[in-house]
Amino acid sequence: MATHPLDPLTVEEVRVASQTLVKQVGCGTNEIRFKVVDLAEPPKDLTLRHLHHHGPAPDRKARVYYHLKTGQSLLIAIVNVTNPQVEKTYHVPDSQGPVDWIEFELVNRACLAHPEVKAEVAKLKLPPHARVLNDPWAFGTDDAKERRRLFQCYMYAALSDDDEANHYSLPLPLAPVFDAHTLELVDLQRLPMGTNDALDAETQPWDPVQPVEYSANILGDAFRKDLKPLQIAQPDGPCFSIAGRRVEWQKWSFQLGWTLREGPVLHDVRYDGRPLFYRVSMSEMTVPYGDPRSPYHRKQAFDLGDSGFGLTSNSLSLGCDCLGHIAYFGGVHVSGDGTPVVMTNVVCMHEVDDGIGWKHTNFRNGKSSVVRDRQLVVQCTATVANYEYILAFVLDQAANLHVDVRATGIVSTMPIRRGLQVPWGTVVAPGVLAVNHQHIFCLRVDPYLDGDQKNTIAYDECIPVLDEPELDPFGCAFRVRTTAIEKPGGYDLDLAKNRTYKITNERINPVSGKPHGYKLHAVPSQMLMMGPETFNYRRGVFTSKPIWVTRYRDDELWASGEFTNQSREDSGIALWSARDEPVKNEDVVLWHSFGVTHITRPEDFPVMPAEKMSVALKPVNFFEQNPSNDVPRSSQSLNKSTLVAACCRESRI
Amino acid sequence: MATHPLDPLTVEEVRVASQTLVKQVGCGTNEIRFKVVDLAEPPKDLTLRHLHHHGPAPDRKARVYYHLKTGQSLLIAIVNVTNPQVEKTYHVPDSQGPVDWIEFELVNRACLAHPEVKAEVAKLKLPPHARVLNDPWAFGTDDAKERRRLFQCYMYAALSDDDEANHYSLPLPLAPVFDAHTLELVDLQRLPMGTNDALDAETQPWDPVQPVEYSANILGDAFRKDLKPLQIAQPDGPCFSIAGRRVEWQKWSFQLGWTLREGPVLHDVRYDGRPLFYRVSMSEMTVPYGDPRSPYHRKQAFDLGDSGFGLTSNSLSLGCDCLGHIAYFGGVHVSGDGTPVVMTNVVCMHEVDDGIGWKHTNFRNGKSSVVRDRQLVVQCTATVANYEYILAFVLDQAANLHVDVRATGIVSTMPIRRGLQVPWGTVVAPGVLAVNHQHIFCLRVDPYLDGDQKNTIAYDECIPVLDEPELDPFGCAFRVRTTAIEKPGGYDLDLAKNRTYKITNERINPVSGKPHGYKLHAVPSQMLMMGPETFNYRRGVFTSKPIWVTRYRDDELWASGEFTNQSREDSGIALWSARDEPVKNEDVVLWHSFGVTHITRPEDFPVMPAEKMSVALKPVNFFEQNPSNDVPRSSQSLNKSTLVAACCRESRI
Repeated sequence: MATHPLDPLTVEEVRVASQTLVKQVGCGTNEIRFKVVDLAEPPKDLTLRHLHHHGPAPDRKARVYYHLKTGQSLLIAIVNVTNPQVEKTYHVPDSQGPVDWIEFELVNRACLAHPEVKAEVAKLKLPPHARVLNDPWAFGTDDAKERRRLFQCYMYAALSDDDEANHYSLPLPLAPVFDAHTLELVDLQRLPMGTNDALDAETQPWDPVQPVEYSANILGDAFRKDLKPLQIAQPDGPCFSIAGRRVEWQKWSFQLGWTLREGPVLHDVRYDGRPLFYRVSMSEMTVPYGDPRSPYHRKQAFDLGDSGFGLTSNSLSLGCDCLGHIAYFGGVHVSGDGTPVVMTNVVCMHEVDDGIGWKHTNFRNGKSSVVRDRQLVVQCTATVANYEYILAFVLDQAANLHVDVRATGIVSTMPIRRGLQVPWGTVVAPGVLAVNHQHIFCLRVDPYLDGDQKNTIAYDECIPVLDEPELDPFGCAFRVRTTAIEKPGGYDLDLAKNRTYKITNERINPVSGKPHGYKLHAVPSQMLMMGPETFNYRRGVFTSKPIWVTRYRDDELWASGEFTNQSREDSGIALWSARDEPVKNEDVVLWHSFGVTHITRPEDFPVMPAEKMSVALKPVNFFEQNPSNDVPRSSQSLNKSTLVAACCRESRI
Repeated sequence: MATHPLDPLTVEEVRVASQTLVKQVGCGTNEIRFKVVDLAEPPKDLTLRHLHHHGPAPDRKARVYYHLKTGQSLLIAIVNVTNPQVEKTYHVPDSQGPVDWIEFELVNRACLAHPEVKAEVAKLKLPPHARVLNDPWAFGTDDAKERRRLFQCYMYAALSDDDEANHYSLPLPLAPVFDAHTLELVDLQRLPMGTNDALDAETQPWDPVQPVEYSANILGDAFRKDLKPLQIAQPDGPCFSIAGRRVEWQKWSFQLGWTLREGPVLHDVRYDGRPLFYRVSMSEMTVPYGDPRSPYHRKQAFDLGDSGFGLTSNSLSLGCDCLGHIAYFGGVHVSGDGTPVVMTNVVCMHEVDDGIGWKHTNFRNGKSSVVRDRQLVVQCTATVANYEYILAFVLDQAANLHVDVRATGIVSTMPIRRGLQVPWGTVVAPGVLAVNHQHIFCLRVDPYLDGDQKNTIAYDECIPVLDEPELDPFGCAFRVRTTAIEKPGGYDLDLAKNRTYKITNERINPVSGKPHGYKLHAVPSQMLMMGPETFNYRRGVFTSKPIWVTRYRDDELWASGEFTNQSREDSGIALWSARDEPVKNEDVVLWHSFGVTHITRPEDFPVMPAEKMSVALKPVNFFEQNPSNDVPRSSQSLNKSTLVAACCRESRI
């Protein structure tokens, strides 16, 4: 089976890329540190010519981020792995690459071993069995002149050696800043413990409290006893088939891509053979925190650009993230010396039953047709330090594509003096403040409905007919007003008008006489609260509007631009949407920013119940009837449901 | 097991109610027509005194709607069935009761047999095997002086005798109006076939088209072949237990009520023994259509008040609406002569697995804790002529209560001349127009957090701190501003401020220092487009605002008032919210109006894929930690998932 042009790099390709780079830049592996080796996607026109018009397969290429150990510049190489050679190396002045595990661990160790940090920790008089932990955080920009590569360390204590002892229940009141290149302590900040910004003159001894734990070992017997197993059987196996990374399921097919940055990506998505989307991906996600007390103003993670949903993806196993018949897909990342590192089971795929897909009963005779809503779920879990994001692409039989996000994991915790409150968050455990924050995601949809590279983004609004008594004597009429988007940029939702964005092409549905389209079921969300003058805004302009439209260009994949770590300005949507290019009936990209403003609760601790958001893309005038009209009707012979004994209920009906 | 005061009437109680009424009003069963016999709920104070303070059980009472055959007035009786006697009979002048099956069938037959209707149908020159069908619709008010009980008949043809032949694919261009009491033809309206309101001079012969079918028998072999069974096994049985109509499940307990009007109702909902809600119910749902052409301006169904989600509920059976281990509950309605009629299996209850409930991985060692999101679903399907509504109360282990609605079934269809389009809808099949419309639901939540009858509705807003450089030098801060609602009335959502409504009491969470509460995860929706001068608005004022707050009074259960059929004015929220009563820290009711503006698509025909809306009530500062922290962790030994063979995928990772 030939490699698809958009497949992730294989183990061998990663090896070729790193070896070719080492050879060609003329230094040994001990003089270079690899950070990222990921697919450099081929240009769309070459890819489409290959896939649809028998054009040659584009060469496979890697995008490599690396450092020479003699310097601090982030270097980028494009390496051809089909015909091994380095095609280009360059650096982007003043840009920082994403966090890699190697430097993370170097900073972690440097911090824990640093005498000044140790002296400060000693003042806390922690119990002798306490372990001191440290999460080096990407340093949110607060100074446009800063050029060092910095990490802000947030520190915690654990009182148990248990593997799952809560690492975030005993936050320590200090936050050292380290230079990741020199491993020098840049600053040893102490953390505010209350509303008053003034710090204590001296670090005070720790105020002993019990951590709030989630570890089953530690909790021991404290579990509810009445949860009984629920199992899913697929006696004839799943409905999907996989060839290479091409997945076929219930009239859908797609190429399952994966990148270190984005995790799973759907390429070349088709329904019943008809192309729908060239690429669907989670493009970025940022978490600004609403606490102005230094150093918390720097807390703004870009969890794709700084960390990577792929790189931080959990290795999954049976019994954890899915129930039923599960297929897994792996990934590859790279060690510092260029050796490929296989990441097993970073994406899982399985079917679920989501209840009733459609139903109608003829009330005259009680005869029902029911179709169940079988879905295919392609999912990953990214652990970005304390937080977890569960990203799922969900396909259903009515030709809807859902993108579901669950935010879970542990809220970011900070110390607070017991008995105090601050306006910036909620005390979720004794001495533990969870600061209020936003999570703003940006979904990128690159459509090619019916294979047409030219598409239009338009919105429909429902507008009452007012004051036209001739036409509408009783005032009940409303019309749909459609507006095609002509210029790139950011656009608003408008619930009062039921404004609904859609992708259309110029083909006309023979039944309805309306253009083929797919509409976006957006997640209406509060956008970024921070104003245009703030770094929060300027680094991620996508957070300011729910809808963005840009003209397609190769490599414009990431909403805040390629390098977000310590970024000062957005190099993504802010630039692309400012180009004065027509976007109507052109190769366009639709972006949807959505998220949640998280006002924290004790109920979110120790691990927060998943907060689910769901975007959908649904056909509108794309098919001539319900695409799931051909799904076999639900029947007991297939479902084999079981009746719970009626026993004591009869008397109560 | 004693009857709970809020349990539905039993078969025996319905019988006692109707017999008592017949005896006491002194006429035989042939002189009276029963429409509805439903529980008249006891006053809240008596009920709470009984449930919590050993007070006596309130008498069981029935609310009976009936007609004397000698008159047209709707009569209402309150009948004590504990000590059988009629306590009160009265009539509400100029009000119409809901539609009952008996009159529906009488009107249906009168219409089909009427010579003028038959003559008009004959002009259509339908093929000889065509069956003519008729759906008498509740008559949407367009004249404040109208006092007759009217039905607008919409008529269709079916070309097949199949039990599930689509009844709505061949709409006929006539719409007779009948008087339900006299069974006289009041008007024989012809339907517009295009944009121009002028009708043809004469009814034209039918333009032959093929109906679009969903019947498996008719479709024959036209099904996808690759759907394989997916079954749910609960080898140790479900986690719920049922005693009478008290359901216990995973720390939750509730009394499962049911009414002919509302379908399932949750009473006395508790988590871990702590009272949360006295009553949670779907209160009303209205569907205004946006087509001004007569007679379509009259299309506005109130599907609870006019028809009843309970009365129209499907009798469910294994293999249809649920998958797994299912318990069913029945209901009772009444025949015209007062005989109780058992409705079997009108509510189903089962557990589902909704994916990951929460997860955290310690990234330092890869150890994960995962809790799956087990849910309890209490569900019914109401078939209101062409449409289906699937209403589900869904409980989860994190103490969230979700109210899910799926809109499915067949869109209301009207004839349209082939090749034409109108601004009011979409042609979904040849000659078939599906008019755009809104579905606006109103959920009623009567809280009693911790058993306190005094609660406050408040909203939180997230407000950026602007221009306070001393406090917030980098402009990242935001605060939560809480506003308690003091006056009853309608209130808005405000996405820009992330406005979130919550129910609180005066108890303080010892961890967070904030009041105990439950917050409403609303469904942000376009509200009614029709203006305040329209009947659409005046009949259902709840549709104009997403949030309503009223002071509790017994019997104020239904958002548009008790009698919606041909109503001219709202006798519910419009009145209750206009009372000048304090609602802060009082016995308050929270109402949430939400829905969908449905711009129809060919993809919605013949049966529309379910459109799902989900409201949730979630604890906020009500618990001291994540309520699902005690759920046993997900494990393969319990889940017994299966690995799909890796086969051909290895080379692609």
